[in-house]
Amino acid sequence: MYATSTIMPYDWLMQPVSEGLAEHFKATQPHTRLDLGRILKARAEISQVFRDTPQFDCPALGDVLGCELVIKLETANPIGCFKGRGTEVLVSRLVRSPGPKIAVCASAGNLGQALAYSGRVRGIGVTVIAGTSANAAKIDRIRRLGAAVELVEGDIENARERAREIAAHGNAFLVEDSENLDTCEGAGTIGLELLEGFDRIDTILLALGGGALATGVGHVFKTLSPATEVVCVQPRGAPAMAMSWRARSIVTADRTDTIADGVAGRFPIPAVLGDLLAIADHVPLVEEESIVAGMRMLYRHAALVVEPSAALGVAAILEDPLRYRGKRVAAVICGSNVLSDSFSAWMRV
Amino acid sequence: MYATSTIMPYDWLMQPVSEGLAEHFKATQPHTRLDLGRILKARAEISQVFRDTPQFDCPALGDVLGCELVIKLETANPIGCFKGRGTEVLVSRLVRSPGPKIAVCASAGNLGQALAYSGRVRGIGVTVIAGTSANAAKIDRIRRLGAAVELVEGDIENARERAREIAAHGNAFLVEDSENLDTCEGAGTIGLELLEGFDRIDTILLALGGGALATGVGHVFKTLSPATEVVCVQPRGAPAMAMSWRARSIVTADRTDTIADGVAGRFPIPAVLGDLLAIADHVPLVEEESIVAGMRMLYRHAALVVEPSAALGVAAILEDPLRYRGKRVAAVICGSNVLSDSFSAWMRV
Repeated sequence: MYATSTIMPYDWLMQPVSEGLAEHFKATQPHTRLDLGRILKARAEISQVFRDTPQFDCPALGDVLGCELVIKLETANPIGCFKGRGTEVLVSRLVRSPGPKIAVCASAGNLGQALAYSGRVRGIGVTVIAGTSANAAKIDRIRRLGAAVELVEGDIENARERAREIAAHGNAFLVEDSENLDTCEGAGTIGLELLEGFDRIDTILLALGGGALATGVGHVFKTLSPATEVVCVQPRGAPAMAMSWRARSIVTADRTDTIADGVAGRFPIPAVLGDLLAIADHVPLVEEESIVAGMRMLYRHAALVVEPSAALGVAAILEDPLRYRGKRVAAVICGSNVLSDSFSAWMRV
Repeated sequence: MYATSTIMPYDWLMQPVSEGLAEHFKATQPHTRLDLGRILKARAEISQVFRDTPQFDCPALGDVLGCELVIKLETANPIGCFKGRGTEVLVSRLVRSPGPKIAVCASAGNLGQALAYSGRVRGIGVTVIAGTSANAAKIDRIRRLGAAVELVEGDIENARERAREIAAHGNAFLVEDSENLDTCEGAGTIGLELLEGFDRIDTILLALGGGALATGVGHVFKTLSPATEVVCVQPRGAPAMAMSWRARSIVTADRTDTIADGVAGRFPIPAVLGDLLAIADHVPLVEEESIVAGMRMLYRHAALVVEPSAALGVAAILEDPLRYRGKRVAAVICGSNVLSDSFSAWMRV
């Protein structure tokens, strides 16, 4: 009835989701915790400001990289990143559920901004826990959005521990990025939009941190366009999830050392690794200098200011150009929350 | 029936245009060459890649400027500027009309890119005439899009003369930016989107060059939301249209001296001045240093790389902050086609 080897046409994806259809995809989609039917429904929960983001051919940069580059731009919204998609879905469900009307999360910044934004719009209180080393610009924006911020010594993993503690002792809903399905399925809506807009995508490049973006978009592609190669990119300086994918079991890291603060986790979540194993075709690790080179190319050839994690895809092409040569490659530009002084310094190197 | 002092709701604007409705607006819209009914219909001619562009509150920059800033971002598309809206409308009509299937225009770059893009997609041949002093990055992109480029000595006005000559001697359709109604009405669709997305906009800030953007968006606002102040901003270094607006008759300039190459005309078109007189409430001239300061603020607080003409609105706020204080001000970010070396140099000043 629906050949999963062909890309579904635009009109089809826009239809209300029928039960029969959801049943069909239950049978053919990859074995992850995610569900295409829920992802299709999730779109209706997401405010327009985060949806239907720009997606366009970028020949100026594609020519330099030797491929047909499609940019999916997730930065032109009030929080400068894709994470509003997930928090909109999550907070909508929180509002409708009988549970607590306060949410707490650990965040290096982007999830915190997203949760603060969605919570404020829908009347859910938000507390964000961040490490003292977190990006100051992001923390400042979280506070402006009305969320409470608590800084703890250490990195994102220490912040996650503290968030769990608050949720356990108080009456707050714990938002564990990537473990929480809404964060993954919300991100997955990016995949729906790309498949509506382009009749063929050979490769999709996704930043890999906790895994919400990678597993969400990956699940959609592996369901609707299984021939697309799903490439999830992590910095060599924060390789825990990539190492886990390769080992097919959890590998943790003692420390991280990368400018890509948005993807610098040390303890992969087992359930998310399971999802990643089901959808990722290739999980390269890239050098810091490639990330900076990628940022510079996005700036020079596409007039984009991006944070380091948003340049992981271009960095992967730079390190392995033959893999992508001549192909139509879509790169999700997932965030632009970077201190402008840092950015300027990197551009000057 | 339709109170023109209230902003029309989203759903209404999305309806097919009825004859009665078009008749209604014929009576109440400002006296310009433009027509709201045609602008509503124009949307259907514009490829998705140029439509429904991001529009969002930007509190980080708004706080610095002392107003509630809404950004309308027209840069995230294959040509890095808004002009695809107009050329899509124009080329669609050219395809359907019995006339020539070749179009010629004079352009400092952005119109040329837009016409080349729309022409290629729809099988219309395009020749672009530019001055030898034009922005090299823009010219390069026009050639990549498959258009023929002819460089002539001098500036945009010399190029316009040459384009007229080609059209007169050959069988080509002359695209005179701003004089051509499609370029104005295509740009006007930006106004429809803003009014759909926000229930109130106190001030709309528009770059003023030839006048297509200003009169197109201005016409829509003055029809549907007449209480919105329409502010059209020109550099003091290229003030011909602003001076003409003030004098209420054509004032030409011997030369231009501005980094805002996208708006540097010397000979305003009388018909366009007539339209501008009907829709503009305020036409300030801004200094070059304010333009650079505006670009720097958009970079630092909104992570945007913009060309100088796209910073004219922010420059106007910087020069006259009290006028905008506390208001909801929408700024159309009309282009990002700037040499990255120039941009980096301006950011460092």
